[in-house]
Amino acid sequence: MHPEKYIIGVDVGGTNIVAAAMPLDGSREIGLRHCPTLQANGDEAVISHITDAVEATIDQLRSETDARREQILGVGLGTPGPLSRSLGTVHTTPHFDWHEFPVRDKVAEALGLKVTLDNDANCFTLGEWWKGAARGASHVIGLTLGTGIGGGIIINGHLYHGASDGAGELGHMTVEPQGRKCHCGNWGCLEAYCSASAVSEQAMELARQKNLNFTPEEISAKAVAKAATDGDADALKILSEAGRYLGIGLANLINIFNPEVIVIGGGLALAGNLLIKGAQEEATTRSFVPMSKVCRIVPAGLPISAAVVGAVGSFKLQTLGSI
Amino acid sequence: MHPEKYIIGVDVGGTNIVAAAMPLDGSREIGLRHCPTLQANGDEAVISHITDAVEATIDQLRSETDARREQILGVGLGTPGPLSRSLGTVHTTPHFDWHEFPVRDKVAEALGLKVTLDNDANCFTLGEWWKGAARGASHVIGLTLGTGIGGGIIINGHLYHGASDGAGELGHMTVEPQGRKCHCGNWGCLEAYCSASAVSEQAMELARQKNLNFTPEEISAKAVAKAATDGDADALKILSEAGRYLGIGLANLINIFNPEVIVIGGGLALAGNLLIKGAQEEATTRSFVPMSKVCRIVPAGLPISAAVVGAVGSFKLQTLGSI
Repeated sequence: MHPEKYIIGVDVGGTNIVAAAMPLDGSREIGLRHCPTLQANGDEAVISHITDAVEATIDQLRSETDARREQILGVGLGTPGPLSRSLGTVHTTPHFDWHEFPVRDKVAEALGLKVTLDNDANCFTLGEWWKGAARGASHVIGLTLGTGIGGGIIINGHLYHGASDGAGELGHMTVEPQGRKCHCGNWGCLEAYCSASAVSEQAMELARQKNLNFTPEEISAKAVAKAATDGDADALKILSEAGRYLGIGLANLINIFNPEVIVIGGGLALAGNLLIKGAQEEATTRSFVPMSKVCRIVPAGLPISAAVVGAVGSFKLQTLGSI
Repeated sequence: MHPEKYIIGVDVGGTNIVAAAMPLDGSREIGLRHCPTLQANGDEAVISHITDAVEATIDQLRSETDARREQILGVGLGTPGPLSRSLGTVHTTPHFDWHEFPVRDKVAEALGLKVTLDNDANCFTLGEWWKGAARGASHVIGLTLGTGIGGGIIINGHLYHGASDGAGELGHMTVEPQGRKCHCGNWGCLEAYCSASAVSEQAMELARQKNLNFTPEEISAKAVAKAATDGDADALKILSEAGRYLGIGLANLINIFNPEVIVIGGGLALAGNLLIKGAQEEATTRSFVPMSKVCRIVPAGLPISAAVVGAVGSFKLQTLGSI
């Protein structure tokens, strides 16, 4: 009998790096771990944090399964930003200071392992389709409401990358033409209203207007969601507006894609019904009945690990040709 | 040698019915003709006008090629509205008073021929991909700026229909949440700004504000485009705003799909640069550079017959399995 093969998935976020090992069939997550990205320390430090996370995962895998390094086929990386899978470079991302950054080869060189690259929100969506809340569906849209808003598109059971790997920038749909400035440089993007950072920025603006003193930590999206749960009127107003714009985005996606499932993840999704209920109402109002009635809008089934699972799936697609 | 086979394509629009015959390889359009839809005369009258157009096309085909009726495989219909290809019914459409209307079987019964149904904008996009301006591309978006705005999506060389045949309602993207009321019941749809009817409605509103008396014909989208070409400030303003919103829609489509080509047809597209240049500028400003630089935005290569050609293509896909 051949020894079992494993793939390591890594989700490189603006705040945290999440990694785990999986056997080829994706049946188990082994050694799931988080470490801080600490991007302020510079690009080389981020590469070190990625490789440290992978090495720690490999150690854990060995201690749990006795797997040797030769049993590891490689590493699937998910990172933000429009990128090139074939070149292994990130073109640009508002959340890191990366420009045509060869993250894939830097990680591969440091580890001595084969590495593939894909967009983190693509990985999230692929993970949810493969092992999460969108299992069994053919047409799936994924949205991650994190520091930014990422998107992924599954068409006929295949992850859709577009002409140059840039498809799925769903967070940069304009939903308010004269609206809030987005980190991407555009005005009125979905991301400028219902990402975690947009929610905390709006809370900070409101606090300033009222001459209240808060630290950024005290006014995080999580803190705003908690305040809203406790009945704070300002927090409720911010989340309600975020939900309304999310609903506009969802309606657009329903009218455009007629998907079976839209799966929503990311930190802000944890605000739950405060955000999602209003979004669903707005989406139903604005989308065509024959399409909205066949579309389930659901929270992530793998809220922590979907992008890690999908990075493993993307590694399989890129190196083995199927998932 | 077997006698050549033919398919009749029919594009059923709010104003005109367009029909032609094509051989299986789509190499020629034979007997292309227009007749008025005259939808005000009722559903049964529209069915008669469709079947009359098909019979006239068959007569023309016979006189040009000697083809007998047995050489006609059937009829591909393209109609507005979310619809069901498998049931052959149109769920609803703002531009006809149709509700779960079995247009396919009514036409098939009247003609004694096999008939397939698909969305008219899907047909437009398929026609442009098969024989028009988007030939050779894998990922294509089609937009028709007519009485309404229709859309079609080609992914990996395949027309995408979504979970229940409703995909591609690109005209019903919200681009101005508190904006103009759309015929679909929603507010601020793309269609409410840059369809031909939206342009003429805005011109009519402006005329009323200024106490000017115009008939609807004098203030058609075509008349507005002509007035703008002649330097009329109001007409220029209306087209410039339409172009700006079209650009927002295009930017969203570029960020979502990362397509190789967006092909624009329909009556309002004939306003040409007055509309399209502004739209392209707005689209470039609002979309990601790695995606906008690979996307060609082009006018229809088959401005009259794309949907007819695509209806033939859709008939092939639905009955023969390939195009």
